[in-house]
Amino acid sequence: MKQNTTRNRRILLNSRPVGAPVDANFRIDEAPIPQAAAGQVLLRTLYLSLDPYMRGRMSDGPSYAAPVGIGETMVGGTVAKVEASQHPDYQAGDLVLSFSGWQDYAISDGTGLIKLAPDMAQPSMALGVLGMPGFTAYMGLLDIGQPKAGDTVVVAAASGAVGALVGQIARLKGCRVVGIAGGSEKCRYVVEELGFDACIDHRSPDLPAALAAACPNGIDVYFESVGGAVFDAVLPLLNTGARVPLCGMISHYNDTELPAGPDRLGLLTRTLLVKRIKMQGFIIFDDYGHRYNEFFTQMSAWLKEGKIKFREDIVDGLENAPQAFMGLLEGRNFGKLLVRVANS
Amino acid sequence: MKQNTTRNRRILLNSRPVGAPVDANFRIDEAPIPQAAAGQVLLRTLYLSLDPYMRGRMSDGPSYAAPVGIGETMVGGTVAKVEASQHPDYQAGDLVLSFSGWQDYAISDGTGLIKLAPDMAQPSMALGVLGMPGFTAYMGLLDIGQPKAGDTVVVAAASGAVGALVGQIARLKGCRVVGIAGGSEKCRYVVEELGFDACIDHRSPDLPAALAAACPNGIDVYFESVGGAVFDAVLPLLNTGARVPLCGMISHYNDTELPAGPDRLGLLTRTLLVKRIKMQGFIIFDDYGHRYNEFFTQMSAWLKEGKIKFREDIVDGLENAPQAFMGLLEGRNFGKLLVRVANS
Repeated sequence: MKQNTTRNRRILLNSRPVGAPVDANFRIDEAPIPQAAAGQVLLRTLYLSLDPYMRGRMSDGPSYAAPVGIGETMVGGTVAKVEASQHPDYQAGDLVLSFSGWQDYAISDGTGLIKLAPDMAQPSMALGVLGMPGFTAYMGLLDIGQPKAGDTVVVAAASGAVGALVGQIARLKGCRVVGIAGGSEKCRYVVEELGFDACIDHRSPDLPAALAAACPNGIDVYFESVGGAVFDAVLPLLNTGARVPLCGMISHYNDTELPAGPDRLGLLTRTLLVKRIKMQGFIIFDDYGHRYNEFFTQMSAWLKEGKIKFREDIVDGLENAPQAFMGLLEGRNFGKLLVRVANS
Repeated sequence: MKQNTTRNRRILLNSRPVGAPVDANFRIDEAPIPQAAAGQVLLRTLYLSLDPYMRGRMSDGPSYAAPVGIGETMVGGTVAKVEASQHPDYQAGDLVLSFSGWQDYAISDGTGLIKLAPDMAQPSMALGVLGMPGFTAYMGLLDIGQPKAGDTVVVAAASGAVGALVGQIARLKGCRVVGIAGGSEKCRYVVEELGFDACIDHRSPDLPAALAAACPNGIDVYFESVGGAVFDAVLPLLNTGARVPLCGMISHYNDTELPAGPDRLGLLTRTLLVKRIKMQGFIIFDDYGHRYNEFFTQMSAWLKEGKIKFREDIVDGLENAPQAFMGLLEGRNFGKLLVRVANS
């Protein structure tokens, strides 16, 4: 189903999920394409980024951002083309990074738009390796994780949009890097293509023993985006003085209640105490927005030098966004998940 | 029972406690006073510091320091007088800060000794406001807690050796300071003498509601040394970007098993994530030993200017150390707990 030149398709939040999202939580809607007024631009979406944080926006529990309202368009980062402009800074044909959500067209007054180079060979990179996931990997690892040469760095979701970059940056810093990923194909990719020292399949029944064997000197930095059984395997291996940047907890996003006991909250804080560990949550643009240029410059240089590889998992068609997003929460994607809404 | 000039009384770890320590876990022993060989000094204890961390040394579970062996002398910081010296840097009569443990006499080769001013009016201060507890308060609050004027700082064990100083330093930095302490007498002291803005009795059945009422703008820094119900009351009040320095968990030291569920480990990490909180354990001399002089200079200046008050809870007689220590774990002390082993 292709973009249309008269109607705007939007994917709305139809109801709040209880546990894992299902089809019925989304609804597709069509409306006339809005028109840009004075000071506005009309954007047409080329790529929509799908990211785990979106699960949080579907719920109305306390989180770091306001939830999407029922009947509102699902939020998300996009690469879009300016179709029409009544804004002095933009003209038709400009390529921009936007936050215009799960829809074909959107109106913007320019707030938050970032212009992309018109000749950008692969504009989807602005949503991955050069965008939010890359920035998250870079700052979380380097600023909170403070890796030193020789440290053991463990990376959850190691073949994903963030984890794949965390591990490669840690290798550039001289660390021993152990990934954790779902399935042998992803693990092979992480070691053979991305150059991690080892990768453990989190589906393996002996995850704790396998991880311990891959980390004979313990863990100095654990880059957390998963939680659950992966964190349980990591916790006893953390070294004195370890750092734990925390950017996500994908294994818990669909939880409807707390797991059964015993209550290990005190066990965690006691571990942080006796091992003098720093654990720190962060939300990339809120905490580090002022350092985006530093990241962009360094990551662009590494890409140019061939030091960083990345992989995209592209799904065609806006109407397939809900299914792709449900798969993301189950780890069915392989690389940065994107929806190609239009070819150009 | 006084110090003797021929026999050395030592309090030994007799057996490892299961849960709260009891009398039978300690044993008093007498032996001839040891003699200083070449390069050594003989120390005579004046003050012994009693501190919560000693509970950890009585157990052989994993912790940040090796446990005391069964039949060995209990460890602890002391202020001592040099009785005899075969060491070029010390002479009889010198006053030193030492780590010579629960005994009347000890031999030292000088390692770790710090000379105190011979005219120090109140040498016990070297074990409290100017020693480990003061240093813990200063660095934990200022370096990890990063308080800003206007922040709300909550301090557990607010009348204790560390907490009383944390709160006063936070007040000097322009923060709103709310203490948590056990009983109305301690709470009154914390507000009226130490100048905290409020103090909540942790024995109050409505601790969560009372704390929430005292923190209308939430909590920006929580200085943790307690855990348990106090932390449970704090957790939902932590603001986005909060900092949680973690120097102890006294409410858990006697635990023999994990509490019943549900398991709130994931709830804690999720809170750290969505509110971008930093939680960091530290062990003062391991993490900040190189900054002791900075602390000592600043705290001495504040004391001279009358900006910091402190309170000591002094128990006479080495033989009373075990009872006093058991009371410390139950919050029966009021101020920095010390044993006066000899008057001079």
